[in-house]
Amino acid sequence: MSKGLPKRADDYSAWYNEVVKRADLAENSAVRGCMVIKPYGYSIWEKMQSALDKMFKDTGHSNAYFPLFIPKSYLSREADHVEGFAKECAVVTHYRLKTSEDGKGVVVDPAAKLDEELIVRPTSETVIWNTYKKWIQSYRDLPILVNQWANVVRWEMRTRLFLRTTEFLWQEGHTAHTTKSEAMEETLKMLNVYSVFAEEFMGIPVLKGVKTENERFAGAVETYSIEALMQDGKALQAGTSHFLGQNFAKAFDVKYATKEGGLDLVWGTSWGVSTRLIGALIMAHSDDNGLVLPPKLAPIQVVIIPIVKDRNHYKLIGERLEPIIRKMKARGISVHYDKRDTHKPGWKFAEYELKGVPLRLAIGPRDLENNTMEMARRDTKTKETVGIDNIDEVVDNLLVEIQNSIYKKALTYRESNTREVDSYEEFKKVLNEKGGFIKAHWDGTVETEDKIKSETKATIRCILLDEKNEPGKCIVSGKPSSKKVVFAKAY
Amino acid sequence: MSKGLPKRADDYSAWYNEVVKRADLAENSAVRGCMVIKPYGYSIWEKMQSALDKMFKDTGHSNAYFPLFIPKSYLSREADHVEGFAKECAVVTHYRLKTSEDGKGVVVDPAAKLDEELIVRPTSETVIWNTYKKWIQSYRDLPILVNQWANVVRWEMRTRLFLRTTEFLWQEGHTAHTTKSEAMEETLKMLNVYSVFAEEFMGIPVLKGVKTENERFAGAVETYSIEALMQDGKALQAGTSHFLGQNFAKAFDVKYATKEGGLDLVWGTSWGVSTRLIGALIMAHSDDNGLVLPPKLAPIQVVIIPIVKDRNHYKLIGERLEPIIRKMKARGISVHYDKRDTHKPGWKFAEYELKGVPLRLAIGPRDLENNTMEMARRDTKTKETVGIDNIDEVVDNLLVEIQNSIYKKALTYRESNTREVDSYEEFKKVLNEKGGFIKAHWDGTVETEDKIKSETKATIRCILLDEKNEPGKCIVSGKPSSKKVVFAKAY
Repeated sequence: MSKGLPKRADDYSAWYNEVVKRADLAENSAVRGCMVIKPYGYSIWEKMQSALDKMFKDTGHSNAYFPLFIPKSYLSREADHVEGFAKECAVVTHYRLKTSEDGKGVVVDPAAKLDEELIVRPTSETVIWNTYKKWIQSYRDLPILVNQWANVVRWEMRTRLFLRTTEFLWQEGHTAHTTKSEAMEETLKMLNVYSVFAEEFMGIPVLKGVKTENERFAGAVETYSIEALMQDGKALQAGTSHFLGQNFAKAFDVKYATKEGGLDLVWGTSWGVSTRLIGALIMAHSDDNGLVLPPKLAPIQVVIIPIVKDRNHYKLIGERLEPIIRKMKARGISVHYDKRDTHKPGWKFAEYELKGVPLRLAIGPRDLENNTMEMARRDTKTKETVGIDNIDEVVDNLLVEIQNSIYKKALTYRESNTREVDSYEEFKKVLNEKGGFIKAHWDGTVETEDKIKSETKATIRCILLDEKNEPGKCIVSGKPSSKKVVFAKAY
Repeated sequence: MSKGLPKRADDYSAWYNEVVKRADLAENSAVRGCMVIKPYGYSIWEKMQSALDKMFKDTGHSNAYFPLFIPKSYLSREADHVEGFAKECAVVTHYRLKTSEDGKGVVVDPAAKLDEELIVRPTSETVIWNTYKKWIQSYRDLPILVNQWANVVRWEMRTRLFLRTTEFLWQEGHTAHTTKSEAMEETLKMLNVYSVFAEEFMGIPVLKGVKTENERFAGAVETYSIEALMQDGKALQAGTSHFLGQNFAKAFDVKYATKEGGLDLVWGTSWGVSTRLIGALIMAHSDDNGLVLPPKLAPIQVVIIPIVKDRNHYKLIGERLEPIIRKMKARGISVHYDKRDTHKPGWKFAEYELKGVPLRLAIGPRDLENNTMEMARRDTKTKETVGIDNIDEVVDNLLVEIQNSIYKKALTYRESNTREVDSYEEFKKVLNEKGGFIKAHWDGTVETEDKIKSETKATIRCILLDEKNEPGKCIVSGKPSSKKVVFAKAY
């Protein structure tokens, strides 16, 4: 199966597309830019949702659901929001079809035109703040800590499966608070939730920082993001958390009666991650043989493949496996015994390698004699023979080890691909020859940022939260700068 | 809080609307017919999703995700489907907005008109069968057992929260099979899953039957449904499972290579339940004091309310509760200790009654002395004093008892409101005076069904799967009939 997968070094983009396709993760649909997420790809999303949802609930949030459609006029209520955001979107203008005159098809019924067009949500701040106006009267009604799992639509011109699609799935948290400091604390708390999720579940180290004005969410006062590094040296923004200040409260007139009897505008945040994370997961760890999945997000953690010379081996192998499969399941391990006789073991080996199953166990006639199995790691490709009796414990420990190992490998890669430069020449040289994250001094102006972007395609990914102050000079303008910022080419 | 809730006997419809509103389940949004599902209402949906999703996976299904948008031409591919179904729907005609000439708002950009309009999915058979064509080549690719959790839009003229909304949340299963018998088996298996879910989780007894041609899903060969009886004597269709025959396979040209080397059309099913179930849940069990929830779907199963005379009681009560709350949580009981000092106990009692929390525990100074708590059931309104030490076990058993009791009450209600009649006079009399399910002989013609519907507003809910053959005469035409069918006025 995996022969013919392009090599990352030859054509990273083609390699990515083929991995998505051959690992049965997703495919393009007949509707431009919209994807079909196939069962195997969707089960990774379910694992992500489950872990994130628990983290949101553990930090006090509840889920709710708001309408898919937003009245057109809402989008212009918050001035920056509409300018930066809401232009490329799907517009519903009619609410009925009728049979065509030839009786063979359907046409839009011109009599069923909406008075005001509806926009398919590109994000839900406007419709949610319009609702919060009804929910919030007094300080007793605050904070509101709500999250929504939903589909959103942004009419993208160039799309790529998971990374940039017209419709995608995401979660969007929308919170409302009495004070600025509480809203800021929430913004950073959720940035941290994303960072913990990326590192502990996805096995991807991330930088946490604040965006420049250029890259800020339209309508936010500050946008924070987590930034990951892919194997081709390009950065990927993996999640954002926005401090909205009182912008949406102003736009939708959301005020609360204070404890002291006054009337104040509410403070807000919003934060989201999307199915784009699946793209990040693929690009961060996978290799020329296909997907490599961290055990915590792998739909199948362990696959067992019987090597059968003689049909009655099936029964013997089945009997030998039954207790160990039971013990693995009792430990919460997701194990799949592939006993299909329509496919040969070699075909199955390639298939599960392509699909990134972290551990493969094989059992043949000699293993039956010796009471052993062959255990192969997907991430390192190492194999060893292990005894069956306590294999559940061995597997359990090894899954933890693989999870850590995948993270460490990605961290080492990022560390060796994060470089500091002190001149624009060096910046361009490193960017072209090596890519990765580049730390450099910047004078803080939009002009310099734009110049660098247009000349090199690199953007400021973020200003690191934990970057130390270290006065220097902007690599382009030579003007003073208090600390370095992180540049990269990005998805 | 609950004073002022309309009485069911006075105005059932007003009662329903007020329960939805005051129990914080949902509200209308600014977009016509679209609802906001509030956190408390959404958490009931999450409980439903979780139970159903497990049942789907236990029966071999996987989740996937298909596009929100359907090209207009797809809808006319299956002739019955477009006729019966796809007319009232949201139509996307443009993909961009631009700033209006006065610079103050946004308008639809006429240059961004789609070549072919996109329909926001009212159901996904067409887009899914178009995809299955790519997934299915051989008998080895079958069966396909896929489910999708999604939002859908049907442009309803008259909407009611949960029961009939323009946008709603649902799941839609779509399966493909090699043989007719396997597809029919799947159709009935999923009908049965719905029936078990309704009875064991929702506590609502349901009738299982097949729909008449009039009420059949557009594009199906047969539609099966589960039918529940609400407290006002009206029926509610709570779930449907469709045997699609080869209709969609024909429309989208989905064929498979048989084991024997031939080429055959694929057989299909589809099945769904929606947020409408929340409406059914409310109407089946609730009373004039508010919501009554079965423990298996209650977001909070047990609420504990401290009765504090003196502020230092909080500490004593907290210490006494700590071990029993821990023990209840260890049993998987969802328990909420409401220690807010901003609200009085009486207010809290009314609030949790309105929200249908199955068990309320109260603890005051005398209980501290006696090591007891006051335990009150929401469903029967009975109270008793119980010792604290083993209260986790008492509560655990009582939650099971409440779940059963709610079901039995609903079953008794349905049984005493299911009547057999032998004449049209009697039919009309029972329908007007008592409502409920009415079993009567019908001659099997659309004409008679239409006549009864237009004269009485009653429809045939279903032909029961387990109805015995018992020859008789149609109550309207006098023509022969082999068995009785079930009529009711319906939501």
